[in-house]
Amino acid sequence: MERTYIKDLNLKKGQDVLIDAHIEVRRDQGKMVFFDFLDMTGIVQGVVLPSYKDALEIAKEIRSEWIVEIVGKVNERPPKNIQKEKLNGDIEIEVKEIKILNKAKELPIEKDSEINIDTYLDYMPLTLRSTKAKAVFKVQATILKAIREFLATENFTEFQAPKLIGEDAEGGANSFNIEYFGHTAHLAQSPQLYKQIMAGVFERVFAIGNVYRAEKHATTRHLNEYTSFDIEMAFIKDHTDVMKMETKILSHVMKVLKAECSAEFELFKSEIPNVPENIPSFKLRQAQEIIKAEFGEDCTKEPDLEPQHERWLCEYAKKKWDSDFIFVTHFPISKRPFYTMEDENDKGYAKGGDLLFRGVEITTLAQRIHDYDTLVESMKNKGLDPEKFRFYLQAFKYGIPPHGGFGFGIERLTAKLLGLQSVKEATLFPRDINRIDNLLSK
Amino acid sequence: MERTYIKDLNLKKGQDVLIDAHIEVRRDQGKMVFFDFLDMTGIVQGVVLPSYKDALEIAKEIRSEWIVEIVGKVNERPPKNIQKEKLNGDIEIEVKEIKILNKAKELPIEKDSEINIDTYLDYMPLTLRSTKAKAVFKVQATILKAIREFLATENFTEFQAPKLIGEDAEGGANSFNIEYFGHTAHLAQSPQLYKQIMAGVFERVFAIGNVYRAEKHATTRHLNEYTSFDIEMAFIKDHTDVMKMETKILSHVMKVLKAECSAEFELFKSEIPNVPENIPSFKLRQAQEIIKAEFGEDCTKEPDLEPQHERWLCEYAKKKWDSDFIFVTHFPISKRPFYTMEDENDKGYAKGGDLLFRGVEITTLAQRIHDYDTLVESMKNKGLDPEKFRFYLQAFKYGIPPHGGFGFGIERLTAKLLGLQSVKEATLFPRDINRIDNLLSK
Repeated sequence: MERTYIKDLNLKKGQDVLIDAHIEVRRDQGKMVFFDFLDMTGIVQGVVLPSYKDALEIAKEIRSEWIVEIVGKVNERPPKNIQKEKLNGDIEIEVKEIKILNKAKELPIEKDSEINIDTYLDYMPLTLRSTKAKAVFKVQATILKAIREFLATENFTEFQAPKLIGEDAEGGANSFNIEYFGHTAHLAQSPQLYKQIMAGVFERVFAIGNVYRAEKHATTRHLNEYTSFDIEMAFIKDHTDVMKMETKILSHVMKVLKAECSAEFELFKSEIPNVPENIPSFKLRQAQEIIKAEFGEDCTKEPDLEPQHERWLCEYAKKKWDSDFIFVTHFPISKRPFYTMEDENDKGYAKGGDLLFRGVEITTLAQRIHDYDTLVESMKNKGLDPEKFRFYLQAFKYGIPPHGGFGFGIERLTAKLLGLQSVKEATLFPRDINRIDNLLSK
Repeated sequence: MERTYIKDLNLKKGQDVLIDAHIEVRRDQGKMVFFDFLDMTGIVQGVVLPSYKDALEIAKEIRSEWIVEIVGKVNERPPKNIQKEKLNGDIEIEVKEIKILNKAKELPIEKDSEINIDTYLDYMPLTLRSTKAKAVFKVQATILKAIREFLATENFTEFQAPKLIGEDAEGGANSFNIEYFGHTAHLAQSPQLYKQIMAGVFERVFAIGNVYRAEKHATTRHLNEYTSFDIEMAFIKDHTDVMKMETKILSHVMKVLKAECSAEFELFKSEIPNVPENIPSFKLRQAQEIIKAEFGEDCTKEPDLEPQHERWLCEYAKKKWDSDFIFVTHFPISKRPFYTMEDENDKGYAKGGDLLFRGVEITTLAQRIHDYDTLVESMKNKGLDPEKFRFYLQAFKYGIPPHGGFGFGIERLTAKLLGLQSVKEATLFPRDINRIDNLLSK
């Protein structure tokens, strides 16, 4: 018999079916045994009646997380037992045969129980099977699918950026070292230099892949390896073209999430945000004036926003425009990476900025310097040696269009969307200073 | 004026347009200057006539790879000048205004000229802009798009596999070391252990990302960093279910390539293969008998195939069944990784094998051991310490369905499809023992 997916059982009422499943729940009532069978498509209740002696004997041995193949009949439940709001709430499998495909040893914890983050991480091969964890990573996969879908309609080409690099764009601080055949290589902190090179090839490019920060912190916000989504687009007028593209992408992502993941958001009691057609946007100095006027703190002399300032600005944007997003642009150019373009009409400030979402920065975006000599000058001003970047600099030496882009961490976006307490809950196998799968101290 | 993409110019005959472009070719004929303008969508000829004095003056300064914004009129060419087979072969831009957006210094080489691989790699920010290089990476992006498209219809969930790992599945040989806060971590050689864990979570999963081999060779086949496409699927009957899935994926990929990349394949004079519904499949021992009978070499005592054997088998499959693909299964289990399942009906041999394509192995596939005790035993037999894999082993301790999968390198597949001499031509920024972007010896 062919396997029927659990979500399709209601099309086979009255028929015999074969299903493959994890045991989600087992309730032994002596004369009969009830199960919740779970496969990747859904869940269904089954019952082993006394008349199926062989099956009942096997059923009594079975425990949670065992893997089984079931043959049984799809029965309609009596009206009083129907649970209308649940998938398969109107049916039940009358189990006739059970084949054990794999056993499980005794579980150290219930996979769906409330546990602290360290226990969750210690037992990930089990805890990832919880309803909530699966929801998180379904949302994450859907975000990436939606991004790719949308960018295909906008003429973007995806490329595979190298992670194993010589020099990095940030000058080597915070990067991991690799022994590379007698040389020291690094793990890339971003695909920045490569996406700029590729903007000279395909005009519009993006890359999705791991990036690395040698963060010495183990907090709810820091990760040593995360997934970065990076875009670069040529022939922009200025950074506002990048802001518009990011707005369109986020808008599409939220539309797809609404269509495909509303159950997952309900589980977390979190709302999928609306993306305004024009996300409110302020220069840093304006934003600081807002903070002063609305929240009473004078940070107008500071070159950057503190976390509390970001939270206030988001609070303000929500209250004033019902927007979960706000752009802050024109940070001092001295605080931005060497490749950032200065605004010729606002000297000393960057043509770009950050996108804040629900209290935190999720994106840095900018127009880049495209003139070779200006770029070399900017490197020198930052104390970087242009000779070490000669490979990258060729892109500029041999002609590159005006371009700009942005990047964001997929795990952070997922965590903020679902309202998770730690970005680690939105990361498959998070690494920090204390942990690579197992605790490093053990 | 809004930008018009070059591919859309033929919709605007007789109208004034604005285009953004690289200068592909410039032909100065004294009284007038001809250009080939190139953007990401195509190419078009333009002419600057003597009557546009300002434009002509600028035109005389411009060189290849400069970046320009052009305003001009889309004229139909006189019938005798029409080149029917070419995009925009029937039109020409009468250039009225030229704005230089960026300049290029003198080019060290013509980007489309025939150059050796080292020169190509040295100047990648320029040489990647050649027609052929762009075709290669368009094909590669299309392969990945087609894979994702197809897997979405087959209930697969994409996940982000970590690359920064503690222990690796192959026991640490050939892996790069990373200094990790006083510990030694490694770069993953495959997402193997994680995709197996995830098969216990989502049943059907895949990952696309970089993997690392500390290969001490610099050949046309070896890379130290490449892009691996990895699948794992639960509730399989045996390895033949994996073979069927791979066949279906490849079949879809080739269909999409035929629809979207036939021009690119023509450029390389390479054919997009047909994927037979049933790719010919032999056990290693049968394959060795074929080699003995057809090519006269007795390799029947060997535990593996040499490169020449792979070429012969492909030659045979092509001649006999007109198939570019052939599966070879049942290698000795002693030669396969610890997680490979032994065939209970053919003791000593693996439930899995390789897929060969046009003379080389492109995939290794197998059913995996899913029983915890058997897996621990297999590790010990291979001299591995199960304690070091205790995180991974939880997936088995706590119940996992029968499962199997495969992986292949996207660069190698791209190279074989297009008939490239070196896999480096199908790799963005290839790393080998001598090179990370620049030569390491310099």
